[in-house]
Amino acid sequence: MTITSSSIIKDVETIRKNAPLVHNITNYVVMNTTANALLAIGASPVMAHALPEVEEMAGIAGALVINIGTLSDAWIEAMFKAAKKAEQRQIPIIIDPVGVGATQYRTRTARELIQASAPSIIRGNGSEIIALCGQEQKTKGVDSTSESDQAIDSAKALVNEFDCVVCITGKIDYIVSGTGIIQVENGHAMMPRVTGLGCTATALCGAFSAINQNYDMAAAHAMAVMGIAGEMAAQNAKGPGSLQVNFIDALYQLSETHIKEYFKA
Amino acid sequence: MTITSSSIIKDVETIRKNAPLVHNITNYVVMNTTANALLAIGASPVMAHALPEVEEMAGIAGALVINIGTLSDAWIEAMFKAAKKAEQRQIPIIIDPVGVGATQYRTRTARELIQASAPSIIRGNGSEIIALCGQEQKTKGVDSTSESDQAIDSAKALVNEFDCVVCITGKIDYIVSGTGIIQVENGHAMMPRVTGLGCTATALCGAFSAINQNYDMAAAHAMAVMGIAGEMAAQNAKGPGSLQVNFIDALYQLSETHIKEYFKA
Amino acid sequence: MTITSSSIIKDVETIRKNAPLVHNITNYVVMNTTANALLAIGASPVMAHALPEVEEMAGIAGALVINIGTLSDAWIEAMFKAAKKAEQRQIPIIIDPVGVGATQYRTRTARELIQASAPSIIRGNGSEIIALCGQEQKTKGVDSTSESDQAIDSAKALVNEFDCVVCITGKIDYIVSGTGIIQVENGHAMMPRVTGLGCTATALCGAFSAINQNYDMAAAHAMAVMGIAGEMAAQNAKGPGSLQVNFIDALYQLSETHIKEYFKA
Repeated sequence: MTITSSSIIKDVETIRKNAPLVHNITNYVVMNTTANALLAIGASPVMAHALPEVEEMAGIAGALVINIGTLSDAWIEAMFKAAKKAEQRQIPIIIDPVGVGATQYRTRTARELIQASAPSIIRGNGSEIIALCGQEQKTKGVDSTSESDQAIDSAKALVNEFDCVVCITGKIDYIVSGTGIIQVENGHAMMPRVTGLGCTATALCGAFSAINQNYDMAAAHAMAVMGIAGEMAAQNAKGPGSLQVNFIDALYQLSETHIKEYFKA
Repeated sequence: MTITSSSIIKDVETIRKNAPLVHNITNYVVMNTTANALLAIGASPVMAHALPEVEEMAGIAGALVINIGTLSDAWIEAMFKAAKKAEQRQIPIIIDPVGVGATQYRTRTARELIQASAPSIIRGNGSEIIALCGQEQKTKGVDSTSESDQAIDSAKALVNEFDCVVCITGKIDYIVSGTGIIQVENGHAMMPRVTGLGCTATALCGAFSAINQNYDMAAAHAMAVMGIAGEMAAQNAKGPGSLQVNFIDALYQLSETHIKEYFKA
Repeated sequence: MTITSSSIIKDVETIRKNAPLVHNITNYVVMNTTANALLAIGASPVMAHALPEVEEMAGIAGALVINIGTLSDAWIEAMFKAAKKAEQRQIPIIIDPVGVGATQYRTRTARELIQASAPSIIRGNGSEIIALCGQEQKTKGVDSTSESDQAIDSAKALVNEFDCVVCITGKIDYIVSGTGIIQVENGHAMMPRVTGLGCTATALCGAFSAINQNYDMAAAHAMAVMGIAGEMAAQNAKGPGSLQVNFIDALYQLSETHIKEYFKA
């Protein structure tokens, strides 16, 4: 299983053509930046979390993204309801278990969510994937304390249990699925200093899986685009402030030429 | 009814001098960016949604902006209470029916809000205005699927029913009121790729209507300023990321010279 | 009591080395920008407000920041619970009484919070500190209507009552404590035009107090870093949009050389 410059650009062009509606139930910190990232790549984001409307919104969406970054009980109920609807409609469900391992509330909620409605893609940093799998807690707040390769066994266990794709992000991204592991080596060291770029990676998995039913490829394409846009953004960045701005510009500008130049095959 | 470079700059200068307090009950996605837009043009924004304080906050504000972008039941209750207070004080109420037509929850809430306390200005994209008027749902998430001119009849019906100004934004903005229609043709094609610029347009209606009781003129001035700042911002933008940053700078810099140069009379 | 270029850089380097976890229960408007500011200076931010997890999160944090900018009852309950845990663990509690004086709800909540668990540092603008102390309301929304020096007596009263540090920000920042007053004169006139920079100042107090138990020094260092980064940011800013971006970059770049060049001793 592999991805190429051509397979990446093909998906990007499909997103730009179809503008898939991505329904996000996500955290307060990143709502603005993930909506902007989705718009920049060509998707159509909507944020909706109210119990009375999540089913209807998931009912018109091309993908459902659930991110537990700033949980509360009312939102959890809406997450379950939206996921159930997405499952019925067989649209992809993408889960971001932010901060799993930092508190029992997050760990329990994330596990119950994936058990209730099997996700298509789980994306987290190494510590989160390890904690989600039930191993010793290593998460400090929401930042990773583990290298991504340390989480591969945990990812494999999740893949087996939930028949899903697990995307571990870090210096190297590992997209683990039933058919093997895809590695993506793009990215820039300054990216973890921008809040919510992990959440953006998850949201982009929503856009790519909405238009590509090979969810391992979709996730790998999303990670490649994240890394390439991050590298493009870092070229003229003076710090994480300008990196964040340039990153959105890069998603918008992203062309076949950029992908061919930056993609580390 | 018409607006001119002179009438626009006059209102901008009054906002800068008076710094009207604009009370926003708005969505999570845009709180930061609309607060920054209001500060940049010279107004004083406050975001407050708690039931125990919305009346008191609306009681000291110069305008109330209600935006249903990320609704929930507790917030709806606060919206009604704040609107009632604003109505009693006869300060302008501006409604942004984000995503009306996408879910029944939004459609019902928006209609009940405008029926309970008549708004001074309703601002939405074409699909939202059509859906708010009760016609066939055409909204896909929160992005418009209709051209703004298709919504003029719906806008007229709302104007008649609620004795308000309806502002339809799109490639051309139509400010529809009892005295006619004002067209504003400023703006840039990249603006819809920045999340929440529609919400910012609504928030600016709050600032302008707080200092100009001719609400059709106030709304038209706000739309002209949006479009002009958008065009100024686009000149050095490499994508929606830098457009968003430049847009705030442009609101801050906006001078009579800029308005005379850019305004399409 | 005084701070120097050397004492400032020493704390900045400790933050960068230790990456203290700062637990924020803060307002929706600034979550993204304060998380980015904490990451840029080298701290590790986490935002968590759910009643079932705030104790556990405060239990692993190096500091707790409570900001009442967009209050609601459910969040208030979590604020008390987190503060109690922070008090037990003797980690610093930093309070930002946003908009105190604008509504009774904010005034009452802020007072009850500081009475329940004594804060280490209170940071507010002049009007907020005066209102928190129980004097005549002068707050218009969330913007200050008083000069910072007018609030010194109120700050002294709060220091005496709660045995805490009070940080009044404005053109000049006054850090008032039991051992005297430290003045910080860095900063730029455009900073109040960026929403939430006051909240960022409070969040930075969290990062500095997590690694420096002299809370008056920690608060003064945080204010000096705010002001210096603001001046650095303003050099190439065309308005508040680019100021906000440059400010994050400046926090990231901040070196001993910058501090020596900009710090107004």
